[in-house]
Amino acid sequence: MPETKNKKDQDFNEWYNEIVELSDLCDKRYPIKGMNVWRPYGWKLMNHVDQLIREEMLNTFHDEVNFPLLIPESSFKKEEEHIEGFGSEVYWITHAGLNQLEEKWLLRPTSETAMYPMFSLWIRSHADLPLKTFQIVNTFRYETKQTRAFIRVREIHFFEAHTCHKNFDEAEKQIQEDKKIANNLFKKLCLPFIFCKRPEWDKFAGAFYTISIDVLMPSGKTLQLGSIHQYKDNFSKPYDITYESEDGKHNNCHQTTYGMSERILGALVGIHGDNKGLIIPPKVAPVQVIIIPIIFKDKDKEIIDNCESLLKQLIDNNIRAKIDKRDITPGNKYYHWELKGVPIRIEIGPKDLEKKQIVVVRRDTGEKTSILYTSSIGYIIKELDKISEKLYDDAKIFLQKNIYRMKDIESASNKKGIIELPWCGEENCAQEIENILDGNTLGEPIENNLCEHPCPICNKKATTWMRYAKSY
Amino acid sequence: MPETKNKKDQDFNEWYNEIVELSDLCDKRYPIKGMNVWRPYGWKLMNHVDQLIREEMLNTFHDEVNFPLLIPESSFKKEEEHIEGFGSEVYWITHAGLNQLEEKWLLRPTSETAMYPMFSLWIRSHADLPLKTFQIVNTFRYETKQTRAFIRVREIHFFEAHTCHKNFDEAEKQIQEDKKIANNLFKKLCLPFIFCKRPEWDKFAGAFYTISIDVLMPSGKTLQLGSIHQYKDNFSKPYDITYESEDGKHNNCHQTTYGMSERILGALVGIHGDNKGLIIPPKVAPVQVIIIPIIFKDKDKEIIDNCESLLKQLIDNNIRAKIDKRDITPGNKYYHWELKGVPIRIEIGPKDLEKKQIVVVRRDTGEKTSILYTSSIGYIIKELDKISEKLYDDAKIFLQKNIYRMKDIESASNKKGIIELPWCGEENCAQEIENILDGNTLGEPIENNLCEHPCPICNKKATTWMRYAKSY
Repeated sequence: MPETKNKKDQDFNEWYNEIVELSDLCDKRYPIKGMNVWRPYGWKLMNHVDQLIREEMLNTFHDEVNFPLLIPESSFKKEEEHIEGFGSEVYWITHAGLNQLEEKWLLRPTSETAMYPMFSLWIRSHADLPLKTFQIVNTFRYETKQTRAFIRVREIHFFEAHTCHKNFDEAEKQIQEDKKIANNLFKKLCLPFIFCKRPEWDKFAGAFYTISIDVLMPSGKTLQLGSIHQYKDNFSKPYDITYESEDGKHNNCHQTTYGMSERILGALVGIHGDNKGLIIPPKVAPVQVIIIPIIFKDKDKEIIDNCESLLKQLIDNNIRAKIDKRDITPGNKYYHWELKGVPIRIEIGPKDLEKKQIVVVRRDTGEKTSILYTSSIGYIIKELDKISEKLYDDAKIFLQKNIYRMKDIESASNKKGIIELPWCGEENCAQEIENILDGNTLGEPIENNLCEHPCPICNKKATTWMRYAKSY
Repeated sequence: MPETKNKKDQDFNEWYNEIVELSDLCDKRYPIKGMNVWRPYGWKLMNHVDQLIREEMLNTFHDEVNFPLLIPESSFKKEEEHIEGFGSEVYWITHAGLNQLEEKWLLRPTSETAMYPMFSLWIRSHADLPLKTFQIVNTFRYETKQTRAFIRVREIHFFEAHTCHKNFDEAEKQIQEDKKIANNLFKKLCLPFIFCKRPEWDKFAGAFYTISIDVLMPSGKTLQLGSIHQYKDNFSKPYDITYESEDGKHNNCHQTTYGMSERILGALVGIHGDNKGLIIPPKVAPVQVIIIPIIFKDKDKEIIDNCESLLKQLIDNNIRAKIDKRDITPGNKYYHWELKGVPIRIEIGPKDLEKKQIVVVRRDTGEKTSILYTSSIGYIIKELDKISEKLYDDAKIFLQKNIYRMKDIESASNKKGIIELPWCGEENCAQEIENILDGNTLGEPIENNLCEHPCPICNKKATTWMRYAKSY
């Protein structure tokens, strides 16, 4: 079996770069660094992920909108912390044709400052609330660090939900809903994750608080896939988003946002893949089942007929299936579809024809099973679910094995993964731990975070656990 | 019945502006002129149109890709005519954060110059051909003329297909396929159109020839919805897109493109709407059937139950249906959904309950029909088709009635619509006719275009008919 040049467990980063290109997800040779071309296979996969997000949004009564990409400088500058946080990483448009623009425009790094002047017009009374919107768009950030496909790019395929509520408590309920959405979505993507309440000094620019969604990559580094923000009235004040309440008063809305990006693909590739290529979770696989006719001249037609009729049944059952009829050896077809991460391969040859069976091969385990043709559809549907479960369970075990809750730094310093240490609440102490562990502060667990041990730096009583990790 | 302030047949342009906003398709109050906010209803409608385009593309084996938005100046400048054509209407990015960029980047006005450097890498041998790709993206043009929702905007929701072939003849076959795609697509959108071969001086910058897809708006002006271009090897030479043929020679590819934009929505609104609002063709209507319970207290539950069970049956038959249970009068609901252009309204009241029937009301004709509950699904499916046919037929009659083929300018000058006059082939003569008619040269018909009359300007023998019209 041909394998990747770089091995996943030896040089994860190089292995990652290699399979992203080999499997035709994207092309990094575009002449602007960090702006990659989505190739058909990668774009389909991304679209399937988007579709899962859309379903979650529609189930929770969010409306899909689409706002302009460009933001006038004056709109952008209304919220001070926000501009401080993003000012150094936005792209500026200064000219149109040969003319200099009267006011500079920027490419959205995120859409608060595009949306909120409009929300201010849309919301009049309590009857307009809650306002729950989302969009899936391209956003732009001027990254100076090394770029990496899906993980650190400059044009970002981005999901953002923006909601407005009557008061803080209603906005808090939205955060609860957002957490459920994350649980549903990442279960389908077979990506176990942790919520972290980001520390004050690392929350979203302008937010009251930020909860991040982090996964653990096989390299031992965490990757932030998304975040949920409580804004309180931090933006609604400068952007004048108010409503008239039942009793005739004018109040500021409280707002939340929810962001996720193409990093989800980075996690799918990195966490599930192996040295043969991608392993795509069935729910988002562009091809869920590939059928390979094992052709021998005298049985050709019968085998192909069998394949076609199976294909039809699979499609009728809403399974994304394909037959590979190319004129190359079955072995080459196996390698090709293994590289592409197709969850199930089916082989039908002359022997199978005789026995009225098909051979089902799982991409994740390599297991081969012969199944009677007549019971194949039910078997395949169940097997797709089993693959999802196994991908999730394996990743969950890896995540849990690599979270270390410890009382002192010494025992933590040789661990690779996520370290939890007692924290007194002081930024200085967390930063000293960052230095010692050569990692970043991820944030507090949002559950089970009570801690009665002393802070390992200042020895004062800690009130919570704090997480540290190396991060992408 | 409440009607629009502006009447469609009296002041089409104002009527158009009014219903675009009233029906919540988009919001034009965004602080950059010509960059509008897609509201949920408009975005859903646009997405349904995109989906029809996608189906046509997939049926003809085009792969969906997604290229970066930004194009380096050096890539853009490789094809001379192209930069001449687009140079004055592109937006330039000069700064990232506080840094000046080493090379300026522009926002794509169309993606030739983004894609072709990559095609040059992707195509090696004849086995890589044909390459058939498309994308649906946001593009940008610095419009100086007055903007109008969907019709003339600066951020454009855009479809573009790009193909590469072995030679001119293969590219010509693609053009034939493109024409079929246009016929399929615009039939579903109930938009009869004409193909015009654009004159030399008005073809796409860099093309060998351009065929436009034009519709006639009720104002008598034409609106170009798309275009199909034969590039020959005009781009493949500067961008070095070559392949090795079966006999080992290196040849330049021949290329075609196919572009369409959100103008399709402009045409849907303008051609089908009336003084009550939109009339959306069933194939793309976000809501195809709205069910309105006519509630009287003692029959409430039974009526709602009936509505719900009908809803379920409609959804099971892949019909996009909804029940309006809001606490407002049925009359107000009627106005609301008429404004939104929902093709079919269903009313179920106590009398209908007794007679085991439902009332079906067509948005296009206003016709009301009572149908037995048990045969309602079949009836509704047929009725949706009939609405499509009628919308198409009405627009076709209007188009045909307003194409005037005439021998001399005098008889043409009082006509509103599309004028066809003999043409000798000289640009000067066409431009003089433009001046006299106060219109634009649309282009030659691509069929039935033989003409044996003299040119009305220079009196030389004409070889073809040429079309003129006022245009958006």
